[in-house]
Amino acid sequence: MAVMTQTTRIWTAALIVVGDEILSGRTQDKNIAQIASWLGVQGIRLREVRVVPDDQDAIVEAVNALRARNDYLFTTGGIGPTHDDITVDAVAAALGVPVVVHPRARAILEAYYATRGGVNAARLRMARVPQGADLIENRVSGAPGIRIGNVYLMAGVPAITAQMLDGLTGQLEGGLPLLARTIGCWVAESEIADILREAEARFVGVQIGSYPFFREGRVGANFVIRSTDADVLAQCARALTEALDEIGREPVDGGI
Amino acid sequence: MAVMTQTTRIWTAALIVVGDEILSGRTQDKNIAQIASWLGVQGIRLREVRVVPDDQDAIVEAVNALRARNDYLFTTGGIGPTHDDITVDAVAAALGVPVVVHPRARAILEAYYATRGGVNAARLRMARVPQGADLIENRVSGAPGIRIGNVYLMAGVPAITAQMLDGLTGQLEGGLPLLARTIGCWVAESEIADILREAEARFVGVQIGSYPFFREGRVGANFVIRSTDADVLAQCARALTEALDEIGREPVDGGI
Repeated sequence: MAVMTQTTRIWTAALIVVGDEILSGRTQDKNIAQIASWLGVQGIRLREVRVVPDDQDAIVEAVNALRARNDYLFTTGGIGPTHDDITVDAVAAALGVPVVVHPRARAILEAYYATRGGVNAARLRMARVPQGADLIENRVSGAPGIRIGNVYLMAGVPAITAQMLDGLTGQLEGGLPLLARTIGCWVAESEIADILREAEARFVGVQIGSYPFFREGRVGANFVIRSTDADVLAQCARALTEALDEIGREPVDGGI
Repeated sequence: MAVMTQTTRIWTAALIVVGDEILSGRTQDKNIAQIASWLGVQGIRLREVRVVPDDQDAIVEAVNALRARNDYLFTTGGIGPTHDDITVDAVAAALGVPVVVHPRARAILEAYYATRGGVNAARLRMARVPQGADLIENRVSGAPGIRIGNVYLMAGVPAITAQMLDGLTGQLEGGLPLLARTIGCWVAESEIADILREAEARFVGVQIGSYPFFREGRVGANFVIRSTDADVLAQCARALTEALDEIGREPVDGGI
């Protein structure tokens, strides 16, 4: 029983996207999909995302709500050098610890800016961390990400966050990755809702999502089957494929 | 004073994106930016977004947290015909009302599907609404959106949500739109953090966001100035432009 509990434990994460630029519609967020995909590969499920403004109270509320009920909490944005970068202060406030200058972060910034005009007060802001934090390396821009407890502070610029995630790959304990298989079909999802429901009900631990689209003047849908068990996933995919074949709708393995 | 209160009231909205497909990283969300931009034009500020799974408890918690503290709450996703479409049931549960079939929604679906194979049980699911709800027209796919109280249920497919937003344009009471002006500069934001902070502090009600980028092998940043007052916005933009000119950095009006 102990083994079973161990293998079936689901590890979860939440993400807080800090940024007025997302809430104003000016910037299309790219970090949600990027972090979600990366977490999936680590065997960790992204359970909830909140996008909050550059406002300390809003960040503190979200940090405390989400860090307690998830194994991991990620944040993106607000760790740069300007006045609107307040994520470090907000996370420190949420955790009840002071903000300190991290000696290695300072050394990294001094080395990085040695040929780029030197460190100034604004740049030194990026060496500030909640007391007790570790750094997450960043090969792009010098300024590191930050880990404190189960909270991971990442950059707002997606390319920098990608580098930070790369540095974290394989470092986080997770469970079984959620496997997915997509079956596409030129059919209105409303025609085959019963088939989907029955396929999902028949296989324990399987979820099927139905994602309709309109292309080339026709309606279709992709059905995404998810399970942590490769055998069950294959069985469910076969059952759904056969059911679609039976009613004369050609299923497309891999999706349309 | 009454007039002043009226003109300075800030109207807020929150958005709940319902969807396992966003949390798995499979689908890149487009609705946050779309709804954020549309709300801005209506004079309503998007204050918070939550992305939650296709799980009734998670949706109920988010609906009740956000509808109470915002003038408007939007949801996207989960109003289609399949088993994983549970937003209507979750919103009804959050509001403590039963789910009923809306006669006009049923008539709309019957007309739409008359030439498309007819209405079946799955399609009729899309006529279900929380009791007391009104419909939001949708010229694309027949299935309408739903309004109940201050909660607006929109489609997950961005093109359908766009049509629903179009139908709502000018219907929602809002305040003064938040105006924005962007000034770009080939400068590391960390070099001019003091200039930004001083410009923001000098003009009441103005926020300045700083958004760095790396292009053509050079660092630069766009500074987005926001205010509801066009005169103050123009004054702040002029002050920031002059300050950048003074240190020999050519500001680019409109951004880079």
